[in-house]
Amino acid sequence: MNILIIGGAGMVGRKLAEQLAKDGTLGGKPITAMTLYDVVPPEAPAGASFPVTCETGNLPAAGETDRLVASKPDVIFHLAAIVSGEAELEFEKGYMINLGGTQNLFESIRVAQYAPRVVFTSSIAVFGAPFPEAIPDDYHLTPLTSYGTQKAIGELLLADYTRKGVFDGIGIRLPTICVRPGKPNKAASGFFSNIIREPLVGKEAILPVSDDVRHWHASPRSGVRFLIRAATIDGDEVGPRRNLGMPGVSVTVGEQIEALGRVAGGDAVARIKREPDELILSVVAGWPRNFDIRRALDLGFEADKSFDEIIQVHIEDELGGKIG
Amino acid sequence: MNILIIGGAGMVGRKLAEQLAKDGTLGGKPITAMTLYDVVPPEAPAGASFPVTCETGNLPAAGETDRLVASKPDVIFHLAAIVSGEAELEFEKGYMINLGGTQNLFESIRVAQYAPRVVFTSSIAVFGAPFPEAIPDDYHLTPLTSYGTQKAIGELLLADYTRKGVFDGIGIRLPTICVRPGKPNKAASGFFSNIIREPLVGKEAILPVSDDVRHWHASPRSGVRFLIRAATIDGDEVGPRRNLGMPGVSVTVGEQIEALGRVAGGDAVARIKREPDELILSVVAGWPRNFDIRRALDLGFEADKSFDEIIQVHIEDELGGKIG
Repeated sequence: MNILIIGGAGMVGRKLAEQLAKDGTLGGKPITAMTLYDVVPPEAPAGASFPVTCETGNLPAAGETDRLVASKPDVIFHLAAIVSGEAELEFEKGYMINLGGTQNLFESIRVAQYAPRVVFTSSIAVFGAPFPEAIPDDYHLTPLTSYGTQKAIGELLLADYTRKGVFDGIGIRLPTICVRPGKPNKAASGFFSNIIREPLVGKEAILPVSDDVRHWHASPRSGVRFLIRAATIDGDEVGPRRNLGMPGVSVTVGEQIEALGRVAGGDAVARIKREPDELILSVVAGWPRNFDIRRALDLGFEADKSFDEIIQVHIEDELGGKIG
Repeated sequence: MNILIIGGAGMVGRKLAEQLAKDGTLGGKPITAMTLYDVVPPEAPAGASFPVTCETGNLPAAGETDRLVASKPDVIFHLAAIVSGEAELEFEKGYMINLGGTQNLFESIRVAQYAPRVVFTSSIAVFGAPFPEAIPDDYHLTPLTSYGTQKAIGELLLADYTRKGVFDGIGIRLPTICVRPGKPNKAASGFFSNIIREPLVGKEAILPVSDDVRHWHASPRSGVRFLIRAATIDGDEVGPRRNLGMPGVSVTVGEQIEALGRVAGGDAVARIKREPDELILSVVAGWPRNFDIRRALDLGFEADKSFDEIIQVHIEDELGGKIG
């Protein structure tokens, strides 16, 4: 198996590469080579038993995606994207990378005339309010951001190129990944992670929305599990509807904070400072809160069991099992 | 009012231009100029009281859409498209014109920095089987053709550019236009019109599917009425969800033939020859049959009353009121 991860320097891409290095196989087949590609230099995971190539470039640049598929990778993970906040501020850049880069990749695969598995990370941002109580699998896509629009277009292209036999695509709509390790990025959803990650290491965090804001979360570990499942699932089992909502944990900010209290105590909770931000509040008001994701569950995608578990995963994977 | 019709040589574009020439106004405002643009030479409608310019060109060519919006038309009707059958056979051409041409147009308007009304004709081909009994307004778009995919992407772009204030867009999902006058085009749906149009003038028509195939129809006259309503409706009344299913008449092929019998007698019906075609049958099986289009009705879009009326409209508008 020759594997390409586009967006290999991002948080999810890095964790995926680490997991594949650890496993040494994908879908029961030995991994023979892996390429990590990103706009900033990716880092090869430690301990891989196969050669790992790290490459840097600008995805929508001329010839770039032709070059990336020249070695005919068996599985291509397309995780690269300008995030929601940035795509909203930089309209042209967002379309150039999130739509243009995706189109170029799909076209390069078409020209290369082989049919790899393509795993495309979409987002719950493809949905826009008003919503039903839990969004069903067949609910229409009415994104309220350019990022959500670009992801929804990527889904449509993925399904059409798959139908035409250009490749065998699976699109997965990731919940908000929480707890995001490291520094905040420009995503407007950053605070969902900040209010857990920072208090766990003794730092303050700003909460810009009210406690009753409900959202849909998955741990980074679940995100990687979803990607690996999407890379190995039988396309016939999925059928022609190739874009799948992923399972998540639906909790309010208040419930997140209660879980933090159970896991890390009242001192951690006390480090959350409430500073309402009307702009973030208005953006978040348009986001989905809860889903009915029967299809994904039937297809063997597994969610985290609770928000407590999501916090525990962060402590195990990022803090060496210890709370600071 | 300065008006641009892209796709002005097509059947719907031509009828729209004729209606606007007859009305002399749009939304109560006098029309001062109209441009008809297409890949083949459009014809200026007779009797217009304002100057009509006819232009020919290739929509996705460099600079073409910049040139088209240079005069800052107040209303742009974007009707141009490679039809379903052709877009399916010519993958690149379909994406180039139906997606690339649309993207270029929207970008040219963005660069021109003015906010016209843009009316985009989408299609019921944005939906793909399996369907509920009647497709609700909030049903997801899972097109089963490249044409349907390109139209669905156009809808998403229209909504996002509208949200950003680049223009004030309304997308309308036209039912199959029936009875289509003139020669058959490459659309796989051609037979729905052929079996009415040809027998009315004493000619034979081939029916390639079974009598129980149900479909969703609107007369060309309704199509023009929808376009004019879409050009003049208050955007605030429509809200952020800018793509609307249009009302139609849901009938089976058998019911179409019964209506033909009522309007034109048994001799006309006897001119329909049943020659089942597995390819057409399989394409048609993926098409929607019936809709719940409450939103469009609430917003003042009006359907034909029956398939009998659809046949009568054809006889009045195309045959001078007489059956041959």
